[in-house]
Amino acid sequence: MKFKLNYSLFCVLIFTCMAVYGQKKYVMVIHGGAGTILKKNMTPEKEAAYIADLTKALQSGYEVIKSGKTSMDAVEAAIHVMEDSPLFNAGKGAVFTHDGRNEMDAAVMDGKTLSAGSVAGVTVIRNPISAARAVMEKSEHVMMVGPGAEAFAKQAKLEIVDPSYFYTKERWDGLQKAIQEDSVKTVLDHGNKKSMKLGTINKDYKFGTVGAVALDKSGNLAAGTSTGGMTNKRYGRVGDAPIIGAGTYANNATAGISCTGWGEFYIRNVVAHDISAMMEYKKMSVADASKAVLAKVGKMGGDGGLIAMDKEGHVAMPFNTEGMYRGTVTADGKIEVLIYK
Amino acid sequence: MKFKLNYSLFCVLIFTCMAVYGQKKYVMVIHGGAGTILKKNMTPEKEAAYIADLTKALQSGYEVIKSGKTSMDAVEAAIHVMEDSPLFNAGKGAVFTHDGRNEMDAAVMDGKTLSAGSVAGVTVIRNPISAARAVMEKSEHVMMVGPGAEAFAKQAKLEIVDPSYFYTKERWDGLQKAIQEDSVKTVLDHGNKKSMKLGTINKDYKFGTVGAVALDKSGNLAAGTSTGGMTNKRYGRVGDAPIIGAGTYANNATAGISCTGWGEFYIRNVVAHDISAMMEYKKMSVADASKAVLAKVGKMGGDGGLIAMDKEGHVAMPFNTEGMYRGTVTADGKIEVLIYK
Repeated sequence: MKFKLNYSLFCVLIFTCMAVYGQKKYVMVIHGGAGTILKKNMTPEKEAAYIADLTKALQSGYEVIKSGKTSMDAVEAAIHVMEDSPLFNAGKGAVFTHDGRNEMDAAVMDGKTLSAGSVAGVTVIRNPISAARAVMEKSEHVMMVGPGAEAFAKQAKLEIVDPSYFYTKERWDGLQKAIQEDSVKTVLDHGNKKSMKLGTINKDYKFGTVGAVALDKSGNLAAGTSTGGMTNKRYGRVGDAPIIGAGTYANNATAGISCTGWGEFYIRNVVAHDISAMMEYKKMSVADASKAVLAKVGKMGGDGGLIAMDKEGHVAMPFNTEGMYRGTVTADGKIEVLIYK
Repeated sequence: MKFKLNYSLFCVLIFTCMAVYGQKKYVMVIHGGAGTILKKNMTPEKEAAYIADLTKALQSGYEVIKSGKTSMDAVEAAIHVMEDSPLFNAGKGAVFTHDGRNEMDAAVMDGKTLSAGSVAGVTVIRNPISAARAVMEKSEHVMMVGPGAEAFAKQAKLEIVDPSYFYTKERWDGLQKAIQEDSVKTVLDHGNKKSMKLGTINKDYKFGTVGAVALDKSGNLAAGTSTGGMTNKRYGRVGDAPIIGAGTYANNATAGISCTGWGEFYIRNVVAHDISAMMEYKKMSVADASKAVLAKVGKMGGDGGLIAMDKEGHVAMPFNTEGMYRGTVTADGKIEVLIYK
């Protein structure tokens, strides 16, 4: 009997060791937006292009971490790649507003100091994520919007571009389609209370966003999110990406989080901070907390996804859409990129 | 022994009933900003004026609740009084930006549905709190900023005023003083890393804000916050007031919360949602959670206060400044107004 008990204990120990040893330690996780992404609608060329740019973003972030720089440097480097790529709804490739403009939002947060920075409604800053970082590091503010944020970015010596830099034919065509669909939708929904609202959302729109969470050699977490917002948006609408606690949050005590999806639901659920709070106050794992909070969003009618990483390098990438552009890189440099369910 | 046990139980029951009966049930709590408010600096006339307007705001909210309308109606009514008063930094009486403009922010949240609305950087809407409510009720968005938010408010038939409506001599003089102090501060701090930051904050500035939380006869909570932001602010700075989860939050499961203070610290600590999360996940009381979260703000170097009320009508009004304009009204209409510690 005694031997049997010890043997059981021995087995439990062995399995525990195997589980711990076998568990990958990640240093970065990124996303390039969640939505109706189906393999049947994707050409091999387009798929390859997405995989290439997501891989490049992860490589950039990994190089930074490997060299001993901060997680914030890694987040900025990875997001630069996605902002500079026309494939993602952030920076070059941002969707158009109803007025035919590209109005971008971005935010960063440092898990060690709980410092944060964000910009909203900027139109001439090449890399909005760097503007968010500049707000955090070079001002005593957290959030700046519109022309004021742009004046600040100029003073902070960030790269300013002509708004035409952000033009891509695909997004312009997307706006024309959205305008047409919206007007059709308004006629069809005539008399429906919901459609009488100003700024009605066509659920089929893409709410693309890019984001990254990194963990550096000092054990510090950082998170960042950058977006062009919603196609055909009006009224200076701001989504969750630049809202600290909603679309972006980082705290060394819990996790770094970046969200993508139907922003209004993410704001109302204070998604990123809620995940952190569940981890801190309910002692939930990053995976369980992420799943639980995304379920709240889904229950309310919102869709999207998120990425999260805790200080041990455990990663969660849940989404309730058809797909989410996403990827990870481990401490030993192994990159994995995924698109579909 | 049996009798003794029953007797003990009887005593516990009696004391519980007494405690419940003796505990006041509040239906509304308001604040008019926290800061360096000292009795020695206050004239009897000014003090009387503040008390009169805070009382009027509470009366307005109470009448709405008494008549059976919603907590959101009560919050809007109370905040209208404070926005229309030149005494508070919201609506008429809003402080001036560096460029001599009045840029206002506001937010509301409905505890039953977790619906929310907010506006930031608006300059021509007489009552920004009503614009926030319109965003919540008449659009599918949560947050709108700048001219876009104003265009929406016009379409939603809100009262539009000339920007000169918001002028008050006291606030204009405050801006001139702030500009002078800032330039002196910059010279004095020359070489100090912190002062090299763009948009340096003079800690002596007032971060006035108004806010209200109400509980209606149906047991629903609502919260709202309205502010003119920070005197001499630049770069389109946005504080915590219009950020759902930071300065404003309501959830029937926990509490309604409205904050006032140094906004940057409230955003970084996601103050309003953190109080709610502590109540939900750690089963803390509204008083203990409010105190704990304000302590986090204080530890980080931020100052201010907040009001919070749970679904049972328990109220918390902590602040770590010299004073906070605040007041409560109970279910039986008893009004209490306080200013100092």
